[in-house]
Amino acid sequence: MPISGELFIGASRVATAETFSAKNPATGETLQPAFSAAGTSEVNRACDLANAAFDTFRNLDSNTRAKFLDSVADHIMGLGDELLDRAHAETGLPLARLTGERGRTVNQLKLFADELRKQGWQGIRVDPALPDRKPLPRVDLRTRKISIGPVVVFGASNFPLAFSVAGGDTASALAAGCPVIVKGHSSHPGTGELVAQAINAAIKACGLPEGVFSLLNTNSHQVGAALVSHPAVKAVGFTGSRNGGMALFKAATSRPDPIPVYAEMSSINPVVLMPHALAVRAEKIATDFVTSLTMGVGQFCTNPGFLIAIESPALEQFITAAGKAVSSTTPAVMLTAGIHSAYEKGVAQLQAQSGVTVVARGTESSSLNCGRAAFFSVSASEVLKNEALTHEVFGSSSLLVRCKDEAQVLNVLEKLEGQLTATLHLDTEDHAMASRLLPTLERKAGRIVVNGWPTGVEVSHAIVHGGPFPATSDGRSTSVGTLAIERFLRPVCYQDLPDALLPSDLKRDNVNSVPHRFDGEYRTTK
Amino acid sequence: MPISGELFIGASRVATAETFSAKNPATGETLQPAFSAAGTSEVNRACDLANAAFDTFRNLDSNTRAKFLDSVADHIMGLGDELLDRAHAETGLPLARLTGERGRTVNQLKLFADELRKQGWQGIRVDPALPDRKPLPRVDLRTRKISIGPVVVFGASNFPLAFSVAGGDTASALAAGCPVIVKGHSSHPGTGELVAQAINAAIKACGLPEGVFSLLNTNSHQVGAALVSHPAVKAVGFTGSRNGGMALFKAATSRPDPIPVYAEMSSINPVVLMPHALAVRAEKIATDFVTSLTMGVGQFCTNPGFLIAIESPALEQFITAAGKAVSSTTPAVMLTAGIHSAYEKGVAQLQAQSGVTVVARGTESSSLNCGRAAFFSVSASEVLKNEALTHEVFGSSSLLVRCKDEAQVLNVLEKLEGQLTATLHLDTEDHAMASRLLPTLERKAGRIVVNGWPTGVEVSHAIVHGGPFPATSDGRSTSVGTLAIERFLRPVCYQDLPDALLPSDLKRDNVNSVPHRFDGEYRTTK
Repeated sequence: MPISGELFIGASRVATAETFSAKNPATGETLQPAFSAAGTSEVNRACDLANAAFDTFRNLDSNTRAKFLDSVADHIMGLGDELLDRAHAETGLPLARLTGERGRTVNQLKLFADELRKQGWQGIRVDPALPDRKPLPRVDLRTRKISIGPVVVFGASNFPLAFSVAGGDTASALAAGCPVIVKGHSSHPGTGELVAQAINAAIKACGLPEGVFSLLNTNSHQVGAALVSHPAVKAVGFTGSRNGGMALFKAATSRPDPIPVYAEMSSINPVVLMPHALAVRAEKIATDFVTSLTMGVGQFCTNPGFLIAIESPALEQFITAAGKAVSSTTPAVMLTAGIHSAYEKGVAQLQAQSGVTVVARGTESSSLNCGRAAFFSVSASEVLKNEALTHEVFGSSSLLVRCKDEAQVLNVLEKLEGQLTATLHLDTEDHAMASRLLPTLERKAGRIVVNGWPTGVEVSHAIVHGGPFPATSDGRSTSVGTLAIERFLRPVCYQDLPDALLPSDLKRDNVNSVPHRFDGEYRTTK
Repeated sequence: MPISGELFIGASRVATAETFSAKNPATGETLQPAFSAAGTSEVNRACDLANAAFDTFRNLDSNTRAKFLDSVADHIMGLGDELLDRAHAETGLPLARLTGERGRTVNQLKLFADELRKQGWQGIRVDPALPDRKPLPRVDLRTRKISIGPVVVFGASNFPLAFSVAGGDTASALAAGCPVIVKGHSSHPGTGELVAQAINAAIKACGLPEGVFSLLNTNSHQVGAALVSHPAVKAVGFTGSRNGGMALFKAATSRPDPIPVYAEMSSINPVVLMPHALAVRAEKIATDFVTSLTMGVGQFCTNPGFLIAIESPALEQFITAAGKAVSSTTPAVMLTAGIHSAYEKGVAQLQAQSGVTVVARGTESSSLNCGRAAFFSVSASEVLKNEALTHEVFGSSSLLVRCKDEAQVLNVLEKLEGQLTATLHLDTEDHAMASRLLPTLERKAGRIVVNGWPTGVEVSHAIVHGGPFPATSDGRSTSVGTLAIERFLRPVCYQDLPDALLPSDLKRDNVNSVPHRFDGEYRTTK
């Protein structure tokens, strides 16, 4: 179906009087059609439908919900090139990148489908009755995790597929049995609508209640706050700016019944270049650094924005090589005019800080909204007295911090806020120093990388894409990988329920076919 | 050691100028000695010590931390009768109850020690490297959960042992590797000090850093807020009033870096008496109800404060029998004069609501601070229009809601806020109706009980003592049982770390000796 510009409220398409348009960031051209903007009444209708669908959707058995996720994936593939072309026009991202991102999005849905089929997501625990226990008998206790309730997902601009309408937050919430209302990102509404068509087709194909999914577009912050404040909504997923995430956090925690917000917001992803690694391969590390820095015009949450190293001749080699590589990078179009101007402003602010030296900039470009790489250096003593040096600049900008010694490296790390990642480049000879840094890195980051770069987040079981505040608003969780399903679940305990009333997987004859804990012991199904 | 009235800041005992005293609620007598009240400087010292102890304590291996918990339990038993006598004087609770509660407290510590020895608490996940994967190789990813950071625990008044200084929150936080600062409840400071002596002795016996535990007494709300706002503090456990819990929640979420608050606050624990069960055993249910209602003078979070039933002759039998049983109950002393006067006020307010009938009151008593049981009834239609009828009255007060039909039962349940528990009294013939109520009960409560009473919370693996707001401020968790350890953990992923730098249990040769997920598959140690 062609892109209509309408909202999706359950199965209904809704047009509103107020509209907005997307722009091609590479050309400045306004893209057709205009898109309806949701208001309060659309918020209420979508939330009511989600609420009405909740009990049915959450009580589907794991295999049925898995089939639905697979169907969403298949329908997204079925959109074909139209999806990629529209996403390219709306974001300026190259088709090759978008093709890869589509694969990631589809695989993410299928990974959650597999996770459901493994059944362990319910976290089942059984403490059988002990009728003869003294002084008091023990009751029969059976616990599982159930869906938390309807979830609002705020799509991100930088992954129009993998972190947007059918992205990670949507996939994990649907897997958990939560109806999802997406507040689509206003920079790629056509891409969003196509994906919403795919989700709606899967809902129909699987015979699910329409309220399982709605897509509301708007560029009003008030509508976002209204969604978060609606009584039917029980959790929020968000990827975006710190200001945006904190506004939603405030709205959610000010409700009469506060709800959890999983906002992934801000990270500079410190990278420590350790002495021996630098001594033996400064130039290789420098080249790889610049590849990571400029990948996707630096528009990743995991972009390496902050390097830390002890002064040495090898460090000078690194700086020279990295500077040379940065100087020869070609600017590329950023996602939106707004992101580009924020990048330019952030780079200018960083450059204006006391003690900051420009090591290199990418080549100039006269093309619209092109992000020009920036590599700066500064002394650790400046960082220790100026918090502004540790703030994120979203894009291909990175700051190298020169330290006098290991103690200063540690002091700089301790000064940092929470991070999605922390990286060490090291050789065997650096292990002793690395082991002294690790306790700090563990406290600061959700993922610790050795001899790699933080960009490129595997979608798997053991991945963590999260971290202490402000990397995320809730450092107990991840927004990528199967562990993300936990964000949208809560435990319910059943005491002395007869088999007839127990949920299927908790019944006495069935529980051995799912991974569970029995009287505390871990049991697999084999 | 005798009770000194001093604070415990790590290993140091600290006296302050400002003091307060405990009172015996049964006699009104002021108990000796006077207790020092903490101020901001004591808060800062305790938090700094906790921060300094954090990395050492969290990095202990599971068995060492388990030994410490066992040692705390042993030292509490070593306090002997002095602990029970002091708790009796400070709370008015009978010695038999306190003896049982001490057993619960000690077993709780030992259960967490066993949970640590089982090793699964770390939630280890391994996705091994796939160097030959196309188009891109997969890195090696290993994830474990680590301690969230120092935790502040606010002791509860109603369990001077099991939910206080070494109670459930402290046990789960220590198990998780988090240093604990207890804000002791001001009504039983002597009991608190004795338990703090036991914890400190265990810290010394195990050679742990002193900052693992501090006890601050105060009756100032500002000091509580200062604790929650301290940068070193990373989570809060609380059991108490809704106002108190929400004040801490507001302080925690207003920090520059918001932190989680696990506040267990308010629950009326609805009990549905189903038609067939009532028809065959109305009087037995009535007697058991009154036993549960008046146990511990109703001072349990799980007290059955709200009964729901469809009008029938059997319901009248139930009301008559329950009224008779309530009428013959003898008032007993409540925990504090404040709790007693709040109970009296709550009962009077409930009685004054439109349509509320007094079914029965317990016998009168001229003794100090004695709580006299109260049993009321009201029609469902009144409940549906008056929210005040669903508010908790802490103590032996319960309201029976008369419904016309099943639809009204469901409407009343839907109107309720989140609950710790929901209970069904049923027979086989009630199963069909029960299965129609269960989806609502699952959404509303953390534990669903059949043919029992919500009072009496097993401390085990499958228990859930939590529930949607306002039962708790975070319905994703439990404050009783081994699942509570999750509240104080966060995941950290290690990407491509060499064995030499991996935490011990994640090393390639060791991971098979702990329960974990390998490439998504569930693996036990056998």
